[in-house]
Amino acid sequence: MNPNDLIRSRVLQYLSAIGAGTAADIAALYADDATVEDPVGSDIRAGRTAIEEFYGALSGADCDAELLTLRVSGNTAAFGFRVTTRTPDQVIVVEPIDIMTFDDDAQITSMRAIWGPDDLTIKNR
Amino acid sequence: MNPNDLIRSRVLQYLSAIGAGTAADIAALYADDATVEDPVGSDIRAGRTAIEEFYGALSGADCDAELLTLRVSGNTAAFGFRVTTRTPDQVIVVEPIDIMTFDDDAQITSMRAIWGPDDLTIKNR
Repeated sequence: MNPNDLIRSRVLQYLSAIGAGTAADIAALYADDATVEDPVGSDIRAGRTAIEEFYGALSGADCDAELLTLRVSGNTAAFGFRVTTRTPDQVIVVEPIDIMTFDDDAQITSMRAIWGPDDLTIKNR
Repeated sequence: MNPNDLIRSRVLQYLSAIGAGTAADIAALYADDATVEDPVGSDIRAGRTAIEEFYGALSGADCDAELLTLRVSGNTAAFGFRVTTRTPDQVIVVEPIDIMTFDDDAQITSMRAIWGPDDLTIKNR
């Protein structure tokens, strides 16, 4: 697989893990010393342990993630996606654009999520 | 205007300058020591003079730029857009996602454009 296709497939794997995987599954897609800044402007989480903790908040939630648009250039991907989370009372939809960089094995070396309150909708069920 | 709205309006100003402005108009939206990496993975152009040179390639072309999607978080914007360029013989359409950072005056401090050959279409007129 060429590097560009490998990055594309890794992004799809990431979105699939958000929907169906554990925090450890998601963290395993990251390099050991990767960083996560979500949303951009918040504290940067560094290292796979901190990253697994971050995704732990999602664990057990009924949610899925759908790719809306994806661009890849060099070692960098930018993608718009929709995460839908269902609680007993509410449906929460957020549509960020994430920027990811990758190493030669297409492990994620950094993720920066760009979204704000305007990109979040909450509906009662 | 709050910082978020100021960044949004600057992105629209940038797209409008791509369509109707000169290279100097576009470069004036950048901070003095800004950098441009377009596409990501290519050489980084540093400083407003080098940036004006870069946009000089567009000058005089019949083109317009349309915003498709925009996210803002902290000092960073990510936006998908479509640039349509018309030559006597061809219509060239490219749809990148750009990542821009801004200073406190919403001058652009960096731009990284994420797109590849798959995001470019060329049609004969």
